[in-house]
Amino acid sequence: MLRHFLVPEADQVLVSEAAAREGTQAVFEAMGVPLDDAALATDVLITSDLRGCESHGISNQLRIYVDQYRNARLNPTPDVKVLRESVVSATLDADLGIGLQVGPRAMEIAMEKAAEFGMGAVGVQRCGHVGMLAYYPLMALERDMIGVCMVSAGGHIQVPTFGSEPVFGTHPIAWAAPAGRHPPFVFDVATTQVAANKIMLTRRIGSNLEPGWITDLNGEPITERVEAPDYGGFFMPPFGGTRENGSHKGYGFAMIADIMSGILSGNGPGFLAGGNELSQFVMAFKIDAFVDVDEFKRDMDALIDRIVNMKPAAGHERVYYAGLIEHEEAAKRRAEGIPYHREVVDWFNGASAELDLKLRWP
Amino acid sequence: MLRHFLVPEADQVLVSEAAAREGTQAVFEAMGVPLDDAALATDVLITSDLRGCESHGISNQLRIYVDQYRNARLNPTPDVKVLRESVVSATLDADLGIGLQVGPRAMEIAMEKAAEFGMGAVGVQRCGHVGMLAYYPLMALERDMIGVCMVSAGGHIQVPTFGSEPVFGTHPIAWAAPAGRHPPFVFDVATTQVAANKIMLTRRIGSNLEPGWITDLNGEPITERVEAPDYGGFFMPPFGGTRENGSHKGYGFAMIADIMSGILSGNGPGFLAGGNELSQFVMAFKIDAFVDVDEFKRDMDALIDRIVNMKPAAGHERVYYAGLIEHEEAAKRRAEGIPYHREVVDWFNGASAELDLKLRWP
Repeated sequence: MLRHFLVPEADQVLVSEAAAREGTQAVFEAMGVPLDDAALATDVLITSDLRGCESHGISNQLRIYVDQYRNARLNPTPDVKVLRESVVSATLDADLGIGLQVGPRAMEIAMEKAAEFGMGAVGVQRCGHVGMLAYYPLMALERDMIGVCMVSAGGHIQVPTFGSEPVFGTHPIAWAAPAGRHPPFVFDVATTQVAANKIMLTRRIGSNLEPGWITDLNGEPITERVEAPDYGGFFMPPFGGTRENGSHKGYGFAMIADIMSGILSGNGPGFLAGGNELSQFVMAFKIDAFVDVDEFKRDMDALIDRIVNMKPAAGHERVYYAGLIEHEEAAKRRAEGIPYHREVVDWFNGASAELDLKLRWP
Repeated sequence: MLRHFLVPEADQVLVSEAAAREGTQAVFEAMGVPLDDAALATDVLITSDLRGCESHGISNQLRIYVDQYRNARLNPTPDVKVLRESVVSATLDADLGIGLQVGPRAMEIAMEKAAEFGMGAVGVQRCGHVGMLAYYPLMALERDMIGVCMVSAGGHIQVPTFGSEPVFGTHPIAWAAPAGRHPPFVFDVATTQVAANKIMLTRRIGSNLEPGWITDLNGEPITERVEAPDYGGFFMPPFGGTRENGSHKGYGFAMIADIMSGILSGNGPGFLAGGNELSQFVMAFKIDAFVDVDEFKRDMDALIDRIVNMKPAAGHERVYYAGLIEHEEAAKRRAEGIPYHREVVDWFNGASAELDLKLRWP
């Protein structure tokens, strides 16, 4: 993660993984989410915080979810329906359950189908926020599968190349594959220049945005270093930023996410989706349907060896690949605790008191 | 396509689609490719030229293929073997057949599996150049399927973010989905800033490269407007260009293509692939395994209506989506002919005489 998104040390409060899990699960249970589902949702959020992906962990999100449960925009006990099913695919109606709760179950279905037939894919319509996308492909790794997730995240922030109005959300795409000796490849990116949650994170942290990260409300890129405006005060270009620099590529990947998640699930294009009626696409490829797992992992290690052992470019100490830093950060945070911003800890302790959870951080 | 890649009008020679097909097919047949396979390979190349994707049509490629057949680097009559197969997947050894010949057959297998079971995916190892990736997903559209293609295109041109040496080729990704009233969504991009073939095209055309399109041989981006060096004189950054501008996203998508095409097919990572032992991944999703085709197309039209009917950004006349210009260009070129550079026409007429094809353009 770029330094723009890190919590300054002076503002950090270390909370142990166990305490973070216990507190988060208690909040979901207080919202009426059943025990097992609360554990799933908690695992998505805490995995995100452990991997250093604060933007999609509890810091920004948990209080939003609480508001959404209180306003009946999320259903804590959804009646998830299978709308359509084939041997390798399924389409689910999440009944306004949060994605953190329905998504892991959708990925389980995809993996069961992949285990039996080679591939599995599940579309989910009418779900709430799904959290860090990488979580779902990560689930596939321990089964020697490649995992994929895409989300059509609304339609009110990302402006298409040459356009003046938003049509997409941040529309993220995640993809993961296991390696042998090395940490796995785990890729998870917004198709905008920056994830919207990270823009919000810079507001808490007080850092500036880079030129070209956002556009004004006419879709024109803002090319100075500016403080992040609040939601409603900006739009975002597809990644690439300008046409010459490849924004049509970010735009195309955003449209792929809109199609695979929104349209293929029957939820519709993101810009027509209701405020909390989102969608999700998850998929698993069973590696040994194509090639021996040992050969696959040996080749992954060869590729990763080539990358991490080359001389870094001038000014850099290491050459990374997607998922490497997050893997290392998770090991560190499991041992030392998660460095939340004190404002987040204060929020939790206030919520805990209000909900009578009898828990206090750190 | 950016103006950088267009053939200047003064250098254009219009060749009818029929003449272009007849001549191209005759060249493949003269190389020993059987009639049906020569027709497939020709269709890939001419579809590319019709859609305005000259970089992957006959202009750059056909003479390279002729050289490769003459040097026995391509096998005109490959014995394609099925190495592994499941109900929804297959892995093929192309026996050094050109991708233009084996790839359409691989996509046929994927679509047959998708028609029966909902999805199909095929990995191909040891194939030659596959041409314009969009061709393969385009095949899926008339069957009301979503098509995907990825290629691990060697390992000697794309430098990973923070790295100093190339690990990937241009590693393109293509994805297509049908619409109703509108032309289909057809996305096909290199994961480098620009396709390598397009760099070569600017050499013929005499236009300059934009800042950040290439790097020097230490992996440092060249930030001035320069003439394209020849192959061997440059590397390329992943799309995005710099880390702040999202080059880690292009890099991640390149790694996805390396994994799905190179490693999953058993061909190995691109940087270890032999000069002409490439790989390909093709996939088809049967739309009605997930949602009614009518509903899917209605939603696609709604999304496209929203895009093409919005006010363009200042300085632009239209808002496009991937595949729209190419669709319009194909209609125009079918009617008027394909505007080849006179140098290409001269090459063809020379080759025709040498091979005694008794054909002459235009």
